[in-house]
Amino acid sequence: MGRATDRRSVLRIDLDAVADGRAPVRRQDTLSVEEPLEIRVGPAGPGRRRPLAVTMRTPGDDIDLAIGFLLTEGLVRSTDDVLTAQLCAGAETPNTYNVVDVVLAPGVPEPTTDPSRNFYTTSSCGVCGKASIEAVRTRSPYPVVDDPLTVRADVLAALPDRLRAAQRAFDRTGGLHAAGLFTAEGEPVVLREDVGRHNAVDKVVGWAVRERRLPLAGHLLLVSGRASFELTQKAWMAGVPLLAAVSAPSSLAADLAEEAGMTLVGFLRGRTMNVYAGGHRVLVG
Amino acid sequence: MGRATDRRSVLRIDLDAVADGRAPVRRQDTLSVEEPLEIRVGPAGPGRRRPLAVTMRTPGDDIDLAIGFLLTEGLVRSTDDVLTAQLCAGAETPNTYNVVDVVLAPGVPEPTTDPSRNFYTTSSCGVCGKASIEAVRTRSPYPVVDDPLTVRADVLAALPDRLRAAQRAFDRTGGLHAAGLFTAEGEPVVLREDVGRHNAVDKVVGWAVRERRLPLAGHLLLVSGRASFELTQKAWMAGVPLLAAVSAPSSLAADLAEEAGMTLVGFLRGRTMNVYAGGHRVLVG
Repeated sequence: MGRATDRRSVLRIDLDAVADGRAPVRRQDTLSVEEPLEIRVGPAGPGRRRPLAVTMRTPGDDIDLAIGFLLTEGLVRSTDDVLTAQLCAGAETPNTYNVVDVVLAPGVPEPTTDPSRNFYTTSSCGVCGKASIEAVRTRSPYPVVDDPLTVRADVLAALPDRLRAAQRAFDRTGGLHAAGLFTAEGEPVVLREDVGRHNAVDKVVGWAVRERRLPLAGHLLLVSGRASFELTQKAWMAGVPLLAAVSAPSSLAADLAEEAGMTLVGFLRGRTMNVYAGGHRVLVG
Repeated sequence: MGRATDRRSVLRIDLDAVADGRAPVRRQDTLSVEEPLEIRVGPAGPGRRRPLAVTMRTPGDDIDLAIGFLLTEGLVRSTDDVLTAQLCAGAETPNTYNVVDVVLAPGVPEPTTDPSRNFYTTSSCGVCGKASIEAVRTRSPYPVVDDPLTVRADVLAALPDRLRAAQRAFDRTGGLHAAGLFTAEGEPVVLREDVGRHNAVDKVVGWAVRERRLPLAGHLLLVSGRASFELTQKAWMAGVPLLAAVSAPSSLAADLAEEAGMTLVGFLRGRTMNVYAGGHRVLVG
Protein backbone atom coordinates (compact mmCIF):
# COMPACT_ATOMS: atom_id res chain seq x y z
CA MET A 1 0.00 0.00 0.00
CA GLY A 2 3.02 2.26 0.09
CA ARG A 3 2.03 3.93 3.30
CA ALA A 4 5.25 3.33 5.24
CA THR A 5 6.31 6.95 4.80
CA ASP A 6 4.52 10.22 4.30
CA ARG A 7 5.47 13.82 3.60
CA ARG A 8 5.00 16.76 5.92
CA SER A 9 5.96 20.41 5.70
CA VAL A 10 8.74 21.21 8.13
CA LEU A 11 10.64 24.31 9.19
CA ARG A 12 14.34 23.47 9.13
CA ILE A 13 16.35 25.60 11.55
CA ASP A 14 20.15 25.65 11.29
CA LEU A 15 21.58 28.06 13.84
CA ASP A 16 24.88 28.30 11.99
CA ALA A 17 23.04 29.33 8.84
CA VAL A 18 21.00 31.80 10.88
CA ALA A 19 24.23 33.28 12.23
CA ASP A 20 25.30 33.77 8.63
CA GLY A 21 22.13 35.71 7.97
CA ARG A 22 20.13 33.00 6.25
CA ALA A 23 16.55 32.45 7.41
CA PRO A 24 15.18 29.01 8.27
CA VAL A 25 13.70 27.23 5.28
CA ARG A 26 10.39 25.46 4.93
CA ARG A 27 10.67 22.18 3.08
CA GLN A 28 9.03 18.81 2.66
CA ASP A 29 10.26 16.10 5.01
CA THR A 30 9.62 12.37 4.94
CA LEU A 31 8.18 10.87 8.12
CA SER A 32 7.53 7.31 9.17
CA VAL A 33 3.83 6.62 9.14
CA GLU A 34 2.30 5.59 12.46
CA GLU A 35 -1.30 4.39 12.50
CA PRO A 36 -3.35 2.19 14.80
CA LEU A 37 -3.95 -1.41 13.83
CA GLU A 38 -6.82 -3.16 15.56
CA ILE A 39 -6.53 -6.94 15.80
CA ARG A 40 -9.88 -8.70 16.03
CA VAL A 41 -10.14 -12.37 16.86
CA GLY A 42 -13.05 -14.76 16.84
CA PRO A 43 -14.04 -18.37 16.36
CA ALA A 44 -14.89 -20.07 13.10
CA GLY A 45 -18.50 -19.82 12.07
CA PRO A 46 -20.98 -17.07 12.71
CA GLY A 47 -19.38 -16.06 16.05
CA ARG A 48 -18.47 -12.47 16.56
CA ARG A 49 -14.90 -11.23 16.19
CA ARG A 50 -13.91 -9.11 19.14
CA PRO A 51 -11.23 -6.43 19.39
CA LEU A 52 -8.23 -7.96 21.11
CA ALA A 53 -5.58 -5.27 20.88
CA VAL A 54 -4.64 -2.07 19.14
CA THR A 55 -1.04 -1.45 18.27
CA MET A 56 0.46 1.71 16.81
CA ARG A 57 2.34 0.47 13.79
CA THR A 58 3.74 1.40 10.39
CA PRO A 59 1.33 0.05 7.76
CA GLY A 60 2.55 -2.90 5.74
CA ASP A 61 2.74 -6.63 6.43
CA ASP A 62 -0.27 -6.19 8.69
CA ILE A 63 -1.44 -9.79 8.39
CA ASP A 64 2.02 -10.96 9.44
CA LEU A 65 1.95 -8.50 12.33
CA ALA A 66 -1.37 -9.86 13.56
CA ILE A 67 -0.33 -13.49 13.25
CA GLY A 68 3.08 -12.84 14.79
CA PHE A 69 1.41 -11.04 17.67
CA LEU A 70 -0.97 -13.93 18.27
CA LEU A 71 1.88 -16.43 18.18
CA THR A 72 4.29 -14.54 20.43
CA GLU A 73 1.42 -14.02 22.87
CA GLY A 74 0.83 -17.77 22.94
CA LEU A 75 -2.66 -17.59 21.42
CA VAL A 76 -1.89 -19.63 18.32
CA ARG A 77 0.78 -22.26 17.75
CA SER A 78 1.01 -22.43 13.97
CA THR A 79 -0.61 -21.25 10.80
CA ASP A 80 -3.01 -24.21 11.13
CA ASP A 81 -4.59 -22.47 14.12
CA VAL A 82 -5.62 -19.56 11.88
CA LEU A 83 -8.51 -20.20 9.50
CA THR A 84 -8.41 -16.77 7.84
CA ALA A 85 -6.72 -13.45 8.51
CA GLN A 86 -7.57 -10.44 6.40
CA LEU A 87 -7.65 -6.68 6.39
CA CYS A 88 -11.24 -5.97 7.32
CA ALA A 89 -13.10 -4.01 4.66
CA GLY A 90 -16.29 -3.28 6.50
CA ALA A 91 -15.02 -1.72 9.67
CA GLU A 92 -14.62 1.86 8.64
CA THR A 93 -15.93 4.25 6.05
CA PRO A 94 -13.78 5.03 4.18
CA ASN A 95 -11.78 1.88 4.72
CA THR A 96 -8.49 2.82 6.31
CA TYR A 97 -7.10 -0.71 6.28
CA ASN A 98 -6.43 -0.45 9.99
CA VAL A 99 -8.30 -3.55 11.16
CA VAL A 100 -7.14 -7.15 10.79
CA ASP A 101 -9.83 -9.76 11.27
CA VAL A 102 -8.54 -13.15 12.42
CA VAL A 103 -10.76 -16.23 12.41
CA LEU A 104 -9.38 -19.06 14.49
CA ALA A 105 -9.50 -22.64 13.27
CA PRO A 106 -12.13 -24.90 14.84
CA GLY A 107 -11.03 -26.07 18.27
CA VAL A 108 -8.60 -23.21 18.93
CA PRO A 109 -9.66 -21.55 22.17
CA GLU A 110 -10.75 -17.93 21.95
CA PRO A 111 -8.74 -15.45 23.98
CA THR A 112 -10.49 -14.88 27.26
CA THR A 113 -11.65 -11.39 28.06
CA ASP A 114 -12.68 -12.06 31.63
CA PRO A 115 -12.34 -8.56 33.08
CA SER A 116 -10.86 -9.84 36.32
CA ARG A 117 -8.02 -11.56 34.49
CA ASN A 118 -8.03 -9.80 31.18
CA PHE A 119 -4.48 -10.62 30.25
CA TYR A 120 -5.43 -11.35 26.70
CA THR A 121 -6.58 -7.81 26.15
CA THR A 122 -2.92 -7.22 25.84
CA SER A 123 -0.79 -4.96 23.76
CA SER A 124 1.61 -5.48 20.99
CA CYS A 125 4.08 -3.95 23.37
CA GLY A 126 4.32 -7.53 24.49
CA VAL A 127 3.64 -7.28 28.13
CA CYS A 128 2.58 -3.85 29.14
CA GLY A 129 -1.12 -4.10 28.43
CA LYS A 130 -1.55 -7.11 30.63
CA ALA A 131 -3.56 -6.64 33.72
CA SER A 132 -1.67 -8.79 36.14
CA ILE A 133 1.96 -9.59 36.67
CA GLU A 134 1.35 -13.33 36.39
CA ALA A 135 0.16 -12.73 32.84
CA VAL A 136 3.43 -11.16 31.73
CA ARG A 137 5.13 -14.47 31.18
CA THR A 138 4.28 -16.72 28.30
CA ARG A 139 5.67 -20.22 27.87
CA SER A 140 7.55 -21.12 24.74
CA PRO A 141 6.81 -24.52 23.25
CA TYR A 142 10.39 -24.59 21.96
CA PRO A 143 13.31 -25.69 24.15
CA VAL A 144 15.95 -23.53 22.48
CA VAL A 145 18.42 -24.53 25.20
CA ASP A 146 19.48 -27.55 23.13
CA ASP A 147 19.78 -25.66 19.83
CA PRO A 148 23.26 -26.49 18.49
CA LEU A 149 23.59 -23.16 16.64
CA THR A 150 27.00 -21.54 16.67
CA VAL A 151 27.88 -18.22 15.04
CA ARG A 152 31.29 -16.72 14.41
CA ALA A 153 31.83 -13.42 16.18
CA ASP A 154 33.00 -11.77 12.98
CA VAL A 155 29.79 -12.87 11.28
CA LEU A 156 27.82 -11.23 14.10
CA ALA A 157 29.88 -8.05 13.81
CA ALA A 158 28.95 -7.72 10.14
CA LEU A 159 25.19 -7.99 10.71
CA PRO A 160 24.28 -4.41 11.72
CA ASP A 161 25.67 -3.08 8.44
CA ARG A 162 23.72 -5.74 6.57
CA LEU A 163 20.56 -4.78 8.42
CA ARG A 164 21.01 -1.11 7.63
CA ALA A 165 21.84 -1.83 4.00
CA ALA A 166 18.64 -3.81 3.68
CA GLN A 167 16.45 -1.19 5.30
CA ARG A 168 14.38 0.59 2.74
CA ALA A 169 12.84 3.39 4.76
CA PHE A 170 15.35 4.13 7.51
CA ASP A 171 17.60 6.47 5.63
CA ARG A 172 14.71 8.62 4.54
CA THR A 173 12.95 9.02 7.88
CA GLY A 174 15.36 8.05 10.65
CA GLY A 175 12.29 6.85 12.47
CA LEU A 176 11.98 3.12 11.95
CA HIS A 177 13.13 0.17 14.00
CA ALA A 178 14.25 -2.93 12.16
CA ALA A 179 14.30 -6.63 12.94
CA GLY A 180 16.17 -9.07 10.74
CA LEU A 181 16.28 -12.84 10.71
CA PHE A 182 19.62 -14.32 9.62
CA THR A 183 21.15 -17.73 9.11
CA ALA A 184 24.16 -18.89 11.13
CA GLU A 185 26.33 -17.80 8.21
CA GLY A 186 24.90 -14.27 8.36
CA GLU A 187 22.68 -14.53 5.31
CA PRO A 188 19.54 -12.40 5.63
CA VAL A 189 16.30 -14.36 5.56
CA VAL A 190 13.72 -11.66 6.17
CA LEU A 191 13.73 -8.05 7.36
CA ARG A 192 10.86 -5.97 8.70
CA GLU A 193 10.61 -2.34 9.83
CA ASP A 194 8.18 -0.47 12.03
CA VAL A 195 7.87 2.56 14.29
CA GLY A 196 7.47 -0.02 17.08
CA ARG A 197 10.32 -2.45 17.57
CA HIS A 198 7.92 -5.08 18.95
CA ASN A 199 5.91 -4.77 15.74
CA ALA A 200 9.01 -5.28 13.61
CA VAL A 201 9.71 -8.52 15.49
CA ASP A 202 6.07 -9.64 15.27
CA LYS A 203 6.13 -9.03 11.51
CA VAL A 204 9.21 -11.25 11.18
CA VAL A 205 7.63 -13.95 13.31
CA GLY A 206 4.31 -13.73 11.49
CA TRP A 207 6.11 -14.18 8.20
CA ALA A 208 7.82 -17.28 9.59
CA VAL A 209 4.50 -18.65 10.86
CA ARG A 210 2.90 -18.27 7.45
CA GLU A 211 5.94 -19.84 5.78
CA ARG A 212 5.75 -22.76 8.23
CA ARG A 213 9.31 -22.16 9.36
CA LEU A 214 8.73 -22.43 13.09
CA PRO A 215 10.59 -23.15 15.24
CA LEU A 216 13.31 -20.83 13.95
CA ALA A 217 16.02 -23.23 15.15
CA GLY A 218 19.46 -22.46 13.83
CA HIS A 219 18.58 -18.81 13.14
CA LEU A 220 19.43 -15.56 14.82
CA LEU A 221 17.41 -12.39 15.17
CA LEU A 222 18.96 -8.92 15.11
CA VAL A 223 17.12 -5.84 16.35
CA SER A 224 18.20 -2.28 15.62
CA GLY A 225 17.64 -0.91 19.13
CA ARG A 226 17.65 -2.25 22.63
CA ALA A 227 16.87 -5.74 23.85
CA SER A 228 13.97 -5.65 26.27
CA PHE A 229 12.23 -8.48 28.08
CA GLU A 230 9.43 -8.48 25.55
CA LEU A 231 11.67 -8.82 22.50
CA THR A 232 13.59 -11.63 24.17
CA GLN A 233 10.34 -13.40 25.00
CA LYS A 234 9.03 -12.97 21.45
CA ALA A 235 12.24 -14.49 20.07
CA TRP A 236 11.92 -17.40 22.47
CA MET A 237 8.28 -17.96 21.53
CA ALA A 238 9.39 -18.35 17.90
CA GLY A 239 12.21 -20.74 18.85
CA VAL A 240 15.06 -18.37 17.98
CA PRO A 241 18.20 -19.43 19.88
CA LEU A 242 20.17 -16.17 19.51
CA LEU A 243 19.00 -12.57 19.87
CA ALA A 244 21.40 -9.76 19.05
CA ALA A 245 20.80 -6.05 19.66
CA VAL A 246 22.68 -2.99 18.53
CA SER A 247 22.06 -1.32 21.90
CA ALA A 248 21.77 -2.31 25.54
CA PRO A 249 19.73 -5.16 26.95
CA SER A 250 17.74 -4.78 30.14
CA SER A 251 18.37 -6.81 33.27
CA LEU A 252 15.21 -8.85 32.70
CA ALA A 253 16.15 -9.58 29.08
CA ALA A 254 19.47 -11.02 30.28
CA ASP A 255 17.71 -13.04 32.99
CA LEU A 256 15.12 -14.45 30.59
CA ALA A 257 17.77 -15.37 28.01
CA GLU A 258 19.75 -17.19 30.70
CA GLU A 259 16.65 -19.05 31.89
CA ALA A 260 15.59 -19.97 28.36
CA GLY A 261 19.03 -21.14 27.32
CA MET A 262 19.13 -18.46 24.64
CA THR A 263 22.17 -16.49 23.58
CA LEU A 264 21.85 -12.74 24.09
CA VAL A 265 24.29 -10.33 22.43
CA GLY A 266 24.16 -6.60 23.10
CA PHE A 267 26.04 -3.47 22.04
CA LEU A 268 26.81 -5.11 18.70
CA ARG A 269 28.77 -2.22 17.23
CA GLY A 270 31.77 -2.08 14.98
CA ARG A 271 34.19 -4.81 16.02
CA THR A 272 32.89 -5.27 19.55
CA MET A 273 29.96 -6.89 21.35
CA ASN A 274 28.85 -8.02 24.79
CA VAL A 275 27.50 -11.52 25.35
CA TYR A 276 25.07 -11.61 28.25
CA ALA A 277 23.94 -15.25 28.08
CA GLY A 278 24.70 -18.41 26.12
CA GLY A 279 28.25 -17.47 25.20
CA HIS A 280 28.96 -21.04 24.00
CA ARG A 281 27.17 -20.23 20.74
CA VAL A 282 29.55 -17.37 19.84
CA LEU A 283 32.79 -18.60 18.27
CA VAL A 284 35.84 -16.38 18.63
CA GLY A 285 39.03 -16.67 16.61
CA MET B 1 15.40 1.84 46.41
CA GLY B 2 18.48 1.94 44.25
CA ARG B 3 17.20 -0.64 41.83
CA ALA B 4 17.58 1.41 38.64
CA THR B 5 20.69 -0.52 37.67
CA ASP B 6 22.00 -4.01 38.31
CA ARG B 7 25.18 -5.92 37.60
CA ARG B 8 25.52 -8.92 35.32
CA SER B 9 28.47 -10.98 34.19
CA VAL B 10 29.22 -10.36 30.53
CA LEU B 11 31.68 -11.71 27.99
CA ARG B 12 33.26 -8.75 26.21
CA ILE B 13 34.43 -9.59 22.69
CA ASP B 14 36.72 -7.17 20.86
CA LEU B 15 37.66 -8.62 17.49
CA ASP B 16 40.66 -6.32 17.16
CA ALA B 17 41.98 -7.58 20.49
CA VAL B 18 41.30 -11.14 19.38
CA ALA B 19 43.29 -10.49 16.22
CA ASP B 20 46.15 -9.41 18.48
CA GLY B 21 45.96 -12.74 20.29
CA ARG B 22 44.05 -11.59 23.36
CA ALA B 23 41.09 -13.69 24.47
CA PRO B 24 37.68 -12.16 25.27
CA VAL B 25 37.35 -11.12 28.88
CA ARG B 26 34.57 -11.81 31.33
CA ARG B 27 33.65 -8.79 33.39
CA GLN B 28 30.83 -7.20 35.36
CA ASP B 29 28.56 -4.90 33.39
CA THR B 30 25.87 -2.49 34.58
CA LEU B 31 22.41 -3.00 33.09
CA SER B 32 19.23 -0.96 33.36
CA VAL B 33 16.75 -2.78 35.53
CA GLU B 34 13.45 -3.71 33.88
CA GLU B 35 10.67 -5.10 36.06
CA PRO B 36 6.89 -5.25 35.76
CA LEU B 37 4.79 -2.73 37.66
CA GLU B 38 1.15 -3.61 38.16
CA ILE B 39 -1.18 -0.65 38.62
CA ARG B 40 -4.30 -1.51 40.62
CA VAL B 41 -7.19 0.89 40.88
CA GLY B 42 -10.33 0.85 42.96
CA PRO B 43 -12.90 3.04 44.66
CA ALA B 44 -12.69 4.50 48.13
CA GLY B 45 -14.01 2.27 50.87
CA PRO B 46 -14.01 -1.49 51.09
CA GLY B 47 -14.27 -1.98 47.32
CA ARG B 48 -11.79 -4.21 45.61
CA ARG B 49 -8.81 -2.81 43.72
CA ARG B 50 -8.51 -4.39 40.33
CA PRO B 51 -5.45 -4.77 38.09
CA LEU B 52 -5.65 -2.10 35.42
CA ALA B 53 -2.33 -2.39 33.60
CA VAL B 54 1.14 -3.82 33.84
CA THR B 55 4.02 -1.83 32.48
CA MET B 56 7.64 -2.92 32.19
CA ARG B 57 9.54 -0.16 33.91
CA THR B 58 12.73 0.77 35.69
CA PRO B 59 11.95 0.83 39.44
CA GLY B 60 11.86 4.24 41.05
CA ASP B 61 9.24 7.00 41.21
CA ASP B 62 6.62 4.28 40.89
CA ILE B 63 3.86 6.29 42.54
CA ASP B 64 4.47 9.12 40.08
CA LEU B 65 4.44 6.60 37.24
CA ALA B 66 1.06 5.26 38.32
CA ILE B 67 -0.46 8.70 38.80
CA GLY B 68 1.02 10.02 35.57
CA PHE B 69 -0.33 7.02 33.72
CA LEU B 70 -3.81 7.53 35.13
CA LEU B 71 -3.74 11.21 34.21
CA THR B 72 -2.41 10.81 30.68
CA GLU B 73 -5.01 8.08 30.12
CA GLY B 74 -7.74 10.50 31.18
CA LEU B 75 -8.77 8.51 34.27
CA VAL B 76 -7.94 11.20 36.81
CA ARG B 77 -7.79 14.97 36.41
CA SER B 78 -5.74 16.07 39.40
CA THR B 79 -4.21 14.82 42.62
CA ASP B 80 -7.57 15.46 44.27
CA ASP B 81 -8.97 12.52 42.29
CA VAL B 82 -6.53 10.20 44.06
CA LEU B 83 -7.26 9.37 47.69
CA THR B 84 -4.15 7.22 48.24
CA ALA B 85 -1.46 5.66 46.08
CA GLN B 86 1.07 3.34 47.60
CA LEU B 87 3.40 0.49 46.82
CA CYS B 88 1.37 -2.49 47.85
CA ALA B 89 3.00 -4.57 50.55
CA GLY B 90 0.72 -7.54 50.63
CA ALA B 91 0.68 -8.60 47.03
CA GLU B 92 3.72 -10.77 46.89
CA THR B 93 5.90 -12.80 49.22
CA PRO B 94 8.57 -11.60 49.41
CA ASN B 95 7.41 -8.09 48.60
CA THR B 96 8.98 -7.09 45.30
CA TYR B 97 7.53 -3.57 45.35
CA ASN B 98 6.09 -4.17 41.92
CA VAL B 99 2.45 -3.29 42.62
CA VAL B 100 1.03 0.21 43.09
CA ASP B 101 -2.38 0.35 44.70
CA VAL B 102 -4.41 3.45 43.81
CA VAL B 103 -7.59 4.35 45.69
CA LEU B 104 -9.72 6.88 43.85
CA ALA B 105 -11.38 9.74 45.69
CA PRO B 106 -15.12 9.44 46.30
CA GLY B 107 -17.08 10.26 43.17
CA VAL B 108 -14.28 9.51 40.70
CA PRO B 109 -15.57 6.90 38.28
CA GLU B 110 -13.79 3.57 38.25
CA PRO B 111 -12.18 2.54 34.97
CA THR B 112 -14.55 0.29 33.12
CA THR B 113 -13.45 -3.21 32.33
CA ASP B 114 -16.36 -4.11 30.10
CA PRO B 115 -14.81 -6.86 27.99
CA SER B 116 -16.49 -5.68 24.83
CA ARG B 117 -15.00 -2.20 25.16
CA ASN B 118 -12.14 -2.77 27.53
CA PHE B 119 -10.18 0.25 26.53
CA TYR B 120 -9.21 0.98 30.05
CA THR B 121 -7.35 -2.28 30.36
CA THR B 122 -4.73 -0.34 28.55
CA SER B 123 -1.02 -0.28 28.61
CA SER B 124 1.50 2.20 29.70
CA CYS B 125 2.57 2.08 26.09
CA GLY B 126 -0.10 4.68 25.79
CA VAL B 127 -2.35 3.25 23.21
CA CYS B 128 -1.36 -0.21 22.24
CA GLY B 129 -3.22 -2.16 24.90
CA LYS B 130 -6.51 -0.65 23.96
CA ALA B 131 -9.01 -2.92 22.40
CA SER B 132 -10.59 -0.64 19.85
CA ILE B 133 -9.34 2.14 17.66
CA GLU B 134 -11.88 4.61 19.02
CA ALA B 135 -10.26 4.16 22.42
CA VAL B 136 -6.85 5.30 21.23
CA ARG B 137 -7.69 8.96 21.48
CA THR B 138 -8.04 10.73 24.77
CA ARG B 139 -9.25 14.31 25.13
CA SER B 140 -7.07 16.83 26.86
CA PRO B 141 -8.80 19.25 29.20
CA TYR B 142 -6.16 21.85 28.34
CA PRO B 143 -6.39 24.05 25.23
CA VAL B 144 -2.66 24.44 24.69
CA VAL B 145 -3.35 26.16 21.36
CA ASP B 146 -3.54 29.51 23.15
CA ASP B 147 -0.41 29.01 25.26
CA PRO B 148 1.74 32.11 24.65
CA LEU B 149 5.01 30.23 25.26
CA THR B 150 7.92 31.17 23.05
CA VAL B 151 11.39 29.61 23.18
CA ARG B 152 14.58 30.77 21.53
CA ALA B 153 15.99 28.25 19.07
CA ASP B 154 19.42 28.45 20.70
CA VAL B 155 17.84 27.62 24.06
CA LEU B 156 16.26 24.56 22.47
CA ALA B 157 19.56 23.54 20.89
CA ALA B 158 21.23 23.50 24.31
CA LEU B 159 18.66 21.22 25.93
CA PRO B 160 19.84 17.76 24.82
CA ASP B 161 23.22 18.36 26.46
CA ARG B 162 21.47 19.52 29.59
CA LEU B 163 19.31 16.42 29.59
CA ARG B 164 22.30 14.15 29.19
CA ALA B 165 24.26 15.99 31.86
CA ALA B 166 21.39 15.53 34.26
CA GLN B 167 20.93 11.85 33.57
CA ARG B 168 22.29 9.81 36.38
CA ALA B 169 22.12 6.30 34.98
CA PHE B 170 22.53 6.69 31.24
CA ASP B 171 26.26 6.79 31.05
CA ARG B 172 26.56 3.60 33.04
CA THR B 173 24.07 1.47 31.14
CA GLY B 174 23.31 3.10 27.79
CA GLY B 175 19.84 1.65 28.21
CA LEU B 176 17.58 4.34 29.62
CA HIS B 177 15.27 6.83 27.97
CA ALA B 178 14.92 10.24 29.54
CA ALA B 179 12.20 12.85 29.68
CA GLY B 180 12.91 16.32 31.00
CA LEU B 181 10.61 19.22 31.79
CA PHE B 182 12.14 22.66 31.19
CA THR B 183 11.12 26.29 31.52
CA ALA B 184 10.99 28.60 28.51
CA GLU B 185 14.47 29.79 29.49
CA GLY B 186 15.79 26.23 29.36
CA GLU B 187 16.04 25.69 33.09
CA PRO B 188 15.45 22.06 34.06
CA VAL B 189 12.44 21.49 36.29
CA VAL B 190 12.36 17.72 36.60
CA LEU B 191 14.00 14.78 34.84
CA ARG B 192 12.99 11.13 34.85
CA GLU B 193 14.51 8.03 33.28
CA ASP B 194 13.16 4.62 32.39
CA VAL B 195 13.67 1.66 30.06
CA GLY B 196 10.33 2.72 28.56
CA ARG B 197 10.12 6.22 27.15
CA HIS B 198 6.39 6.38 27.88
CA ASN B 199 7.18 5.57 31.50
CA ALA B 200 9.74 8.38 31.68
CA VAL B 201 7.07 10.82 30.49
CA ASP B 202 4.45 9.41 32.86
CA LYS B 203 6.90 9.82 35.76
CA VAL B 204 7.40 13.48 34.86
CA VAL B 205 3.66 14.04 34.55
CA GLY B 206 2.92 12.17 37.77
CA TRP B 207 5.40 14.38 39.60
CA ALA B 208 3.66 17.45 38.20
CA VAL B 209 0.26 16.12 39.25
CA ARG B 210 1.45 15.54 42.81
CA GLU B 211 3.04 19.00 42.88
CA ARG B 212 -0.21 20.54 41.62
CA ARG B 213 1.56 22.07 38.65
CA LEU B 214 -0.96 21.09 35.99
CA PRO B 215 -1.53 22.34 33.39
CA LEU B 216 2.14 22.62 32.46
CA ALA B 217 1.53 25.83 30.54
CA GLY B 218 4.65 27.71 29.59
CA HIS B 219 6.82 24.60 29.86
CA LEU B 220 8.44 22.34 27.34
CA LEU B 221 9.12 18.64 27.43
CA LEU B 222 12.21 17.03 25.89
CA VAL B 223 12.44 13.29 25.22
CA SER B 224 15.68 11.49 24.45
CA GLY B 225 14.34 9.36 21.61
CA ARG B 226 11.61 9.62 19.04
CA ALA B 227 8.31 11.45 19.24
CA SER B 228 5.45 9.02 18.80
CA PHE B 229 1.72 9.65 18.86
CA GLU B 230 1.51 8.43 22.45
CA LEU B 231 4.20 10.76 23.78
CA THR B 232 2.61 13.71 22.00
CA GLN B 233 -0.77 12.80 23.45
CA LYS B 234 0.69 12.42 26.96
CA ALA B 235 2.27 15.88 26.69
CA TRP B 236 -1.04 17.34 25.54
CA MET B 237 -2.93 15.66 28.39
CA ALA B 238 -0.60 17.45 30.82
CA GLY B 239 -1.04 20.78 29.04
CA VAL B 240 2.52 21.00 27.70
CA PRO B 241 2.58 23.36 24.69
CA LEU B 242 5.94 22.24 23.23
CA LEU B 243 7.35 18.73 22.79
CA ALA B 244 10.92 18.33 21.55
CA ALA B 245 12.58 15.07 20.59
CA VAL B 246 16.18 14.20 19.83
CA SER B 247 15.07 11.84 17.06
CA ALA B 248 12.32 11.60 14.46
CA PRO B 249 8.62 12.14 15.03
CA SER B 250 6.03 9.90 13.42
CA SER B 251 3.41 11.13 10.97
CA LEU B 252 0.68 10.79 13.57
CA ALA B 253 2.69 12.72 16.16
CA ALA B 254 2.99 15.62 13.72
CA ASP B 255 -0.72 15.42 12.90
CA LEU B 256 -1.77 15.39 16.54
CA ALA B 257 0.51 18.30 17.42
CA GLU B 258 -0.97 20.31 14.57
CA GLU B 259 -4.50 19.49 15.68
CA ALA B 260 -3.79 20.29 19.32
CA GLY B 261 -2.02 23.55 18.56
CA MET B 262 1.17 22.19 20.11
CA THR B 263 4.69 22.85 18.92
CA LEU B 264 6.58 19.73 17.86
CA VAL B 265 10.35 19.85 17.38
CA GLY B 266 12.27 16.81 16.10
CA PHE B 267 15.86 15.90 15.27
CA LEU B 268 17.06 18.35 17.91
CA ARG B 269 20.77 17.75 17.46
CA GLY B 270 23.75 20.02 17.64
CA ARG B 271 22.82 23.36 16.08
CA THR B 272 19.90 22.10 14.02
CA MET B 273 16.29 21.07 14.47
CA ASN B 274 13.10 20.47 12.51
CA VAL B 275 9.85 22.12 13.54
CA TYR B 276 6.85 20.03 12.50
CA ALA B 277 4.03 22.07 14.04
CA GLY B 278 3.51 25.32 15.91
CA GLY B 279 6.59 27.07 14.55
CA HIS B 280 5.40 30.44 15.90
CA ARG B 281 6.67 29.42 19.36
CA VAL B 282 10.26 28.98 18.18
CA LEU B 283 12.17 32.27 17.99
CA VAL B 284 15.07 32.44 15.57
CA GLY B 285 17.77 35.07 15.58
